[in-house]
Amino acid sequence: MIVIGERINGQFNDVKKAIQKEDKDVIQKLALGQIEAGANYLDVNVGTAVPSAKKGEAMVWLIEAIQEVTDAPLALDTPILSVMEASLEAAKKPPMINSTQADPDKLETYLKLAIDNDASLIALTMDKDGVPQDVDRRIELAGNIVIAAMEAGFPFEKLFIDPIILPVKAAQQQPKILLESIQQLQALADPPPHFVVGLSNISQGAKENHLINRTYLAMCIAMGLDAAIVDPFDTELMNTMITAELLLNKQIYSDSFLAAYLSG
Amino acid sequence: MIVIGERINGQFNDVKKAIQKEDKDVIQKLALGQIEAGANYLDVNVGTAVPSAKKGEAMVWLIEAIQEVTDAPLALDTPILSVMEASLEAAKKPPMINSTQADPDKLETYLKLAIDNDASLIALTMDKDGVPQDVDRRIELAGNIVIAAMEAGFPFEKLFIDPIILPVKAAQQQPKILLESIQQLQALADPPPHFVVGLSNISQGAKENHLINRTYLAMCIAMGLDAAIVDPFDTELMNTMITAELLLNKQIYSDSFLAAYLSG
Repeated sequence: MIVIGERINGQFNDVKKAIQKEDKDVIQKLALGQIEAGANYLDVNVGTAVPSAKKGEAMVWLIEAIQEVTDAPLALDTPILSVMEASLEAAKKPPMINSTQADPDKLETYLKLAIDNDASLIALTMDKDGVPQDVDRRIELAGNIVIAAMEAGFPFEKLFIDPIILPVKAAQQQPKILLESIQQLQALADPPPHFVVGLSNISQGAKENHLINRTYLAMCIAMGLDAAIVDPFDTELMNTMITAELLLNKQIYSDSFLAAYLSG
Repeated sequence: MIVIGERINGQFNDVKKAIQKEDKDVIQKLALGQIEAGANYLDVNVGTAVPSAKKGEAMVWLIEAIQEVTDAPLALDTPILSVMEASLEAAKKPPMINSTQADPDKLETYLKLAIDNDASLIALTMDKDGVPQDVDRRIELAGNIVIAAMEAGFPFEKLFIDPIILPVKAAQQQPKILLESIQQLQALADPPPHFVVGLSNISQGAKENHLINRTYLAMCIAMGLDAAIVDPFDTELMNTMITAELLLNKQIYSDSFLAAYLSG
């Protein structure tokens, strides 16, 4: 499983304040803590900590603060192209671009950006018409993404397709539709690209959010999900993920399989 | 989800002693407790509490003890035909027969027994050659079960096919094979019969058995499992099951969805 730690995001109050006060210590502790808890990538997102005009600067500050203490790869998370370009310049290790949508012009731009920067790329199965509500449209958009990647010569092992989780509380028929989508998307190419979700969306606004997150993650992994943007500090979530991988025979069983996973 | 409570089984020490001492109180508390915790059926199995010649008598004693305090339906769990016949005679409510294997002669015998007693039937995808190690043989045996049920005029809503869980510790490639089997078996008939597993087998001999059980249950439910023999006293397991069903849109979301499930 490829774990993308979600905690360095300006939507969280501690991160928002740290960005505003330029308090590196908070960010660096979150970086090291997430890696220790099992994150393979660190997502970096300024959220609403600063006005739009300052977002590029804030991203670069975040990236440099993190890179002072770790060389873990980063998932650069911004919808603004100029902010993404500044972030890519600041990143030392080949990063992940998070994210592009599936409109042909956006795919072309972001695939080129990924190739030029040796980066991986998250591509959402949505376009100017919004998030699909059914399986078929998700598959159609994923097909467009795969074709665009092939045409650009972008390798599938760096391509992460995100079929987009919608909150169970708001759209209760959607979680099942997404599971079916992940399952059917396995046949998209052989070997298939990666599939990733922003997990916490599933429980947005819901009670029992930790229980919902970890239960849904196990279900998604059963369907073929192999990457997720999650909170690695949620120990029960991480234990569920490690156990689901064990049950798919991706890790050798030992009585200490949880610790064995985290120690690599 | 159809929950079959596994706790009234002579393999557990408290039950073994209760059978040997004819201590109804222990059994009746386990019966009522499991129902309160969400069991729809109560499995009844004497295990090794008494010698083979006494098993029929012990089963009838167990059944009568349970029926003094509840009219919940029972899953009569014995491989001995004469013990099953005695148990069926003692059961007041239409019970579940647990179980038959897929050999033609056994299927014929147990389907007739189920029809004559208005019982449901668990049929294992194994025969005299043992438990299959692959998907194809499980599907072949499940096909034989479905055909035999059709020929006997046995309704699919009373048929529970068990593709047989093997322990992850002993056979680590098997849990994934079983998930694929459950998924492929959904296409066996339309509407399909029920699919059931004896969940605790997955973690036999393993550490972290509760974590393994609940993670695998969520994965099996994602694949279409709709019944399971479990320990309903494992609250985290039951919460995982309820949440997985919620995420498949089988229960309407409310902030108190866990309590809502248990209160029916």
